[in-house]
Amino acid sequence: MAGEGKGLSRRRLLAGAGGGAAAGAAVGFLGGRAVSPAEAAAADGLDLSRAYDFYTGDHQVGIATPPQRHLVFMSLDVVEGTTAEQLKVLFARWSAAMATMMKGNPVGSVEPTRSNGVPQDTGEAYDLSPASLTVTLGLGPGLFDDRFGLAGRGPKLLAEIPRLPSDELKPELCGGDLALQACADDPQVAYHAIRDLVRIGRGLVTTRWTVLGFGRASAGKGQKTPRNLMGLKDGTRNIKSEEDLDEFVWVADPDEPAWMRGGSYLVTRKINMDIEVWDGTTIDTQHLTIGRDKAEGAPLSGKKEFDTPDFKAVRDGKPVIDPTSHVALAASENNGGAKILRRGYNFTDGLNSLGQLDAGLFFIAFMKDPATFVDLQRKLGRVDLLNEYIAHVGSAIFAVPRAPKSGHFLAQELFD
Amino acid sequence: MAGEGKGLSRRRLLAGAGGGAAAGAAVGFLGGRAVSPAEAAAADGLDLSRAYDFYTGDHQVGIATPPQRHLVFMSLDVVEGTTAEQLKVLFARWSAAMATMMKGNPVGSVEPTRSNGVPQDTGEAYDLSPASLTVTLGLGPGLFDDRFGLAGRGPKLLAEIPRLPSDELKPELCGGDLALQACADDPQVAYHAIRDLVRIGRGLVTTRWTVLGFGRASAGKGQKTPRNLMGLKDGTRNIKSEEDLDEFVWVADPDEPAWMRGGSYLVTRKINMDIEVWDGTTIDTQHLTIGRDKAEGAPLSGKKEFDTPDFKAVRDGKPVIDPTSHVALAASENNGGAKILRRGYNFTDGLNSLGQLDAGLFFIAFMKDPATFVDLQRKLGRVDLLNEYIAHVGSAIFAVPRAPKSGHFLAQELFD
Repeated sequence: MAGEGKGLSRRRLLAGAGGGAAAGAAVGFLGGRAVSPAEAAAADGLDLSRAYDFYTGDHQVGIATPPQRHLVFMSLDVVEGTTAEQLKVLFARWSAAMATMMKGNPVGSVEPTRSNGVPQDTGEAYDLSPASLTVTLGLGPGLFDDRFGLAGRGPKLLAEIPRLPSDELKPELCGGDLALQACADDPQVAYHAIRDLVRIGRGLVTTRWTVLGFGRASAGKGQKTPRNLMGLKDGTRNIKSEEDLDEFVWVADPDEPAWMRGGSYLVTRKINMDIEVWDGTTIDTQHLTIGRDKAEGAPLSGKKEFDTPDFKAVRDGKPVIDPTSHVALAASENNGGAKILRRGYNFTDGLNSLGQLDAGLFFIAFMKDPATFVDLQRKLGRVDLLNEYIAHVGSAIFAVPRAPKSGHFLAQELFD
Repeated sequence: MAGEGKGLSRRRLLAGAGGGAAAGAAVGFLGGRAVSPAEAAAADGLDLSRAYDFYTGDHQVGIATPPQRHLVFMSLDVVEGTTAEQLKVLFARWSAAMATMMKGNPVGSVEPTRSNGVPQDTGEAYDLSPASLTVTLGLGPGLFDDRFGLAGRGPKLLAEIPRLPSDELKPELCGGDLALQACADDPQVAYHAIRDLVRIGRGLVTTRWTVLGFGRASAGKGQKTPRNLMGLKDGTRNIKSEEDLDEFVWVADPDEPAWMRGGSYLVTRKINMDIEVWDGTTIDTQHLTIGRDKAEGAPLSGKKEFDTPDFKAVRDGKPVIDPTSHVALAASENNGGAKILRRGYNFTDGLNSLGQLDAGLFFIAFMKDPATFVDLQRKLGRVDLLNEYIAHVGSAIFAVPRAPKSGHFLAQELFD
């Protein structure tokens, strides 16, 4: 696996970009307090100089990469009449631009020397650090219909997600022929990447929907698992080993197109949370709903976050973890061993029409077979206690090609 | 000036939270590259463990504090029938909660011990670092009308901003009886602060509008001035000395109410940018419009960013800096020496109804006399070349009380 170490511990994988201890030099600053050497040694730092390599020749970055702090996700449609040859050129130009931006460089001139030149790069990330930027390309089912000469060339398992229980989908938040996922530790770097890729695609692609997401920037008091906007740790049982990535995430089927082997399938769901309703519930309702406690995130059958849930535990004749709690329904043990790699981000769209805080989770998951998600959500959508507080309003699926080697571009064999 | 050093250099004030060099230890991570000791020493780091003190007894934090990376700004209205006594209690509760959260602590129990208890803190920032959180309170003109028994007790200069040239204001993005400005280097910390303060105010206040803003997280290749979404450095000539703060920002008038002395006036404008139109213009149009070059940010009459613009310079019989360029119109030299302290944030609201990137600048400025802004914008709104690419869609003004000493609360004397 190019560019990746073997035998990763959970800690290393989870710690991600915030895992390196930063020793900040004491500096004076207006209105603040000075940082003592002891405090500085314990400082919770974020190193923005990190750069990832685009040309891994294997998996695209932005999948197993430790989640960066910010997400800009853009779904796009391809304009009617676009040819496969034009798409090929677009993918080549996009690949080159992604690789350049991930190094922290502009996609072209910020300041053309000819006075009547138009800047090639929009400039807002000029001179900024790479900030762990990754850009990941996904191809939607519509790309392989009869519009672009690519019919029959799509991945085997790429099909629209069927209607699922509890769906409250809004068409304008669903689907798309293409997806660009930019993640970075600097929101301006992530935004710039999407903006300039959209600009490169002008005339061939139009924007469909977008989501801006954030995770927590600090690891705080050693907490490794981020929290969602219900205040709950989210990701405790996420995939954390290379073995699981190989078993559940990376496409290896020799019947898949060559450009998909080492790739994956990406499912997104925009999930609104009724956070003001949730905030008014009692702690025992919250515990019952999730099947974990809130502060520690331990399963109700255990004491520590990483204790394995005991779904058979009984107290006073009742299961300790309710079988319709979120953790019970989603657990791999209760789904034939199936796992998905989640990479969700919190989002907020400000206020809704009632003046309530409009917020939720932008669910992103990667898997080698989209049926894993469909089966899981069919169950969750039917009986999950959490459904009282959430609504799935957006949905999409994309095939994620393998990354190119240097000198090549994404999904290149698709056009051979 | 409590808690603030004297004789601040421009570098220290500008560098802010990103100014401390972070020496990140080399750690392995999935898909990334290792950081060499030399690179680590030059790493561009962000220390999230920093905490500010709320009880300065002088200026509120979040005004002259080096701008943090994220903003959540909430405008609120007070519910009809609320009494001054209730507002007094609210301000006392808010002050205590702000001080607590700025230390990185929850506002109450995250996990009540009684099973039927409702958590007092919503939990999403539990165990996170303080991340330089500041929360700043502003009081709008409506607070001093005849609804709450506070008529005649308002600051001398607090009045709605008059209609100004080029205004394209939307009422739903304007005004408000109260404002809460949360800034932090962790978006989840800023969001949590506003959410829990709104929750504390439930029944007394309702949300009116909100803006989520971001600045760049990294200082990149030593660049100190952040860029806006036009790709332009924004803030080169901002107020950078304590002398200017005293002269232009802090209210000192003995005729102002006691709780306003050491406070300031806060003006916000939500400014949409037609970034896709701007991106299509030539570099000489961009230079002409702003009066500066793009990459360096130097005035067209000079070579370096901090060169003083020479508005009298002439080349080929024409002024080098166009008198209707943004820098010429906004310059202190051309406005009777007047200055304001700007603290704007970039924002994006996703896509607009045309599928274009919906983005802009949330302008925030502090000043001792709001007439400074009104006079300036009256001029800019009339002839600024930039007007072709921007639209002021939101506007509000608030009086910002002095910060309390420990044991007191914001605007306490208002209720005496």
